[in-house]
Amino acid sequence: MSRQITFELQAECPDTRARAGILHTAHGDIPTPIFMPVGTQGTVKGLTQSQLADELRAPIILGNTYHLFLRPGPELIKQFGGLHGFMNWPNAILTDSGGYQVFSLSELRRISEEGVTFQSHLNGDAHKFTPASTVDVQLSLGSDIMMVLDECPPYPVSHESARASMERTVRWAGAAFAHYRERIKQVPGRHALFPIVQGSMFPDLRQECARRLLDLDADGYAVGGLSVGEPRPLSMDMVEATEPILPRDRPRYAMGVGMPQELPEYVARGIDMMDCVLPSRNARNGWIFTSEGKVVIKHARYRDDPAPLDPSCACYTCRTHSRAYLRHLFQAGEILFSTLATLHNLKRYLDIMGEIRQSILLGQFPAYLRRVREQNALVR
Amino acid sequence: MSRQITFELQAECPDTRARAGILHTAHGDIPTPIFMPVGTQGTVKGLTQSQLADELRAPIILGNTYHLFLRPGPELIKQFGGLHGFMNWPNAILTDSGGYQVFSLSELRRISEEGVTFQSHLNGDAHKFTPASTVDVQLSLGSDIMMVLDECPPYPVSHESARASMERTVRWAGAAFAHYRERIKQVPGRHALFPIVQGSMFPDLRQECARRLLDLDADGYAVGGLSVGEPRPLSMDMVEATEPILPRDRPRYAMGVGMPQELPEYVARGIDMMDCVLPSRNARNGWIFTSEGKVVIKHARYRDDPAPLDPSCACYTCRTHSRAYLRHLFQAGEILFSTLATLHNLKRYLDIMGEIRQSILLGQFPAYLRRVREQNALVR
Repeated sequence: MSRQITFELQAECPDTRARAGILHTAHGDIPTPIFMPVGTQGTVKGLTQSQLADELRAPIILGNTYHLFLRPGPELIKQFGGLHGFMNWPNAILTDSGGYQVFSLSELRRISEEGVTFQSHLNGDAHKFTPASTVDVQLSLGSDIMMVLDECPPYPVSHESARASMERTVRWAGAAFAHYRERIKQVPGRHALFPIVQGSMFPDLRQECARRLLDLDADGYAVGGLSVGEPRPLSMDMVEATEPILPRDRPRYAMGVGMPQELPEYVARGIDMMDCVLPSRNARNGWIFTSEGKVVIKHARYRDDPAPLDPSCACYTCRTHSRAYLRHLFQAGEILFSTLATLHNLKRYLDIMGEIRQSILLGQFPAYLRRVREQNALVR
Repeated sequence: MSRQITFELQAECPDTRARAGILHTAHGDIPTPIFMPVGTQGTVKGLTQSQLADELRAPIILGNTYHLFLRPGPELIKQFGGLHGFMNWPNAILTDSGGYQVFSLSELRRISEEGVTFQSHLNGDAHKFTPASTVDVQLSLGSDIMMVLDECPPYPVSHESARASMERTVRWAGAAFAHYRERIKQVPGRHALFPIVQGSMFPDLRQECARRLLDLDADGYAVGGLSVGEPRPLSMDMVEATEPILPRDRPRYAMGVGMPQELPEYVARGIDMMDCVLPSRNARNGWIFTSEGKVVIKHARYRDDPAPLDPSCACYTCRTHSRAYLRHLFQAGEILFSTLATLHNLKRYLDIMGEIRQSILLGQFPAYLRRVREQNALVR
């Protein structure tokens, strides 16, 4: 089968597993490594599509299948030409399978070999996700990059139960791909479906999972089951464990990570794509990421501070407003604070990824990584 | 005394009291009649300054002295070069005196001849506003157009009590002007202070008030005490009552009005400036003003409606998004809805004022007013 979404490897770092590349999609080329802002319900909270596309130049955002499935529903979104048309979003979209939210938000879920039955967190209605149905939903959403339904076990979990869950995830990935390959014969357009490596915090299970998923010859591979409460060194170890197994010429996506200082760490372990609610959620809570460390905007020390959030940031917020004004907006509970802080935090994440990419292309990533580690040791 | 803010009358409508003009301020020329978006706490809720200035091209916004006095405080704002610098707002700013909020928000207020003592609605701290102190606060805010402290009586109220209140308002206006004229000898810059016509719903009191305020030879006159619960025809009558008394060559500002269909009615009664929270507050509540009537976005009929909010509107929201998408954002409680709806509603208000102004300049205002009245009879 010809590739729908192609990945062009441009440079590799000799001392780490870091790579720079370009992901070619139907909605534009995406330079990697890349961070994807999270647009849970068809909007990156607080930002207009113009702020995202024109001001932040985000080449790809993430949509959540679980939320969009429940509201407004895939049929409605399909009527509008998919999520791109519904949101009027010009660039690429990646959607998860909805599995993660079924496990984290919904009560009364029941897993069987066929799929997972769950109750809507909105109104209690019963629904079922199967490997095939979540592909169908994501095709209705018109995502550029879709994810297979997987089971994301809680942390910690026994080896035995992690194995059972991993094996089900592999079987579900097979079922999803079989269905997907039939469906895309009828649904034209350039899509990709990524399987997801699971296996909790057991390197042997993750390696076995990765090896078995290779058979799918997918356009890219995701590493899931991270950021579920485990200590951060363990997440890194899990990514490291499967890196040598995943195909070098396909993009790898670490789901739901991470803090700013962790981004280069994941890249150093062969990751090309990341997403996380941290920059946007923390923004709304007044927690700002800057090149000089964090700014907790409510602190009294910012009351009359005329400096921008980050003097070396070029975002609209930093070009336009002082910390004092932003603190006032935060204290007054003004909507504008969420917008301005989200704009900045996302710019910070995109800037970090840009610096990482640049340093890889220039062959200077090891020095960059060293500098970031030293800085973080200082600011903590 | 030379005028600080000058008003250039450009056209008058022969059949009504409608006028078109230009208000020259230190922060730009303002075409009148004009609607002023309300920026209570140093932000028009949900919009960036760029959306307000570049997208909506609002030449003037309103700030609330009461709110800004309590938080973040006039000293802090002054440190940043006034509200223009603190907000980074390039165009003109009008501030009220804070009196209205003292009467509507604060409990335990006590009025004396000297001024009004009140408790902060935020933390209960006691404060006092006097005619002189509210001028000082507004000078710290650096407002282009300031208002005198007035007493806004509730509705209904006896003639006797309305007279006492009106007379106090006239005395306070005199005190405010005496102080203002001393202060601006030391504080350079182009400001204006407007006295406020009060008198509840008694034409004789309002006329007496207007006549007595003429002595102040102010750069403009405000009509206050409207929208306090009275039937709308009464508000119109009150504006009509003082129109012939107020100087023809100074702008008149009707405070806190009105609904879209009322805007031309006020203009027909000689009003040049208006402000109101309706377009922005209703926007956040999903109540949209369009050229074809209201759109209550939560209604199921908009669920799959691909049309923009208003097909004849050129705002970012209408250029970019469907009613279906906006309804989804509203139902999901997304911040972006507030931004997009506020952008549209304010554009609608500014467009209406633009149409009114245009029709006056072309000598077609009577026909315009007739058309609006017929339309409103239809859409109600």
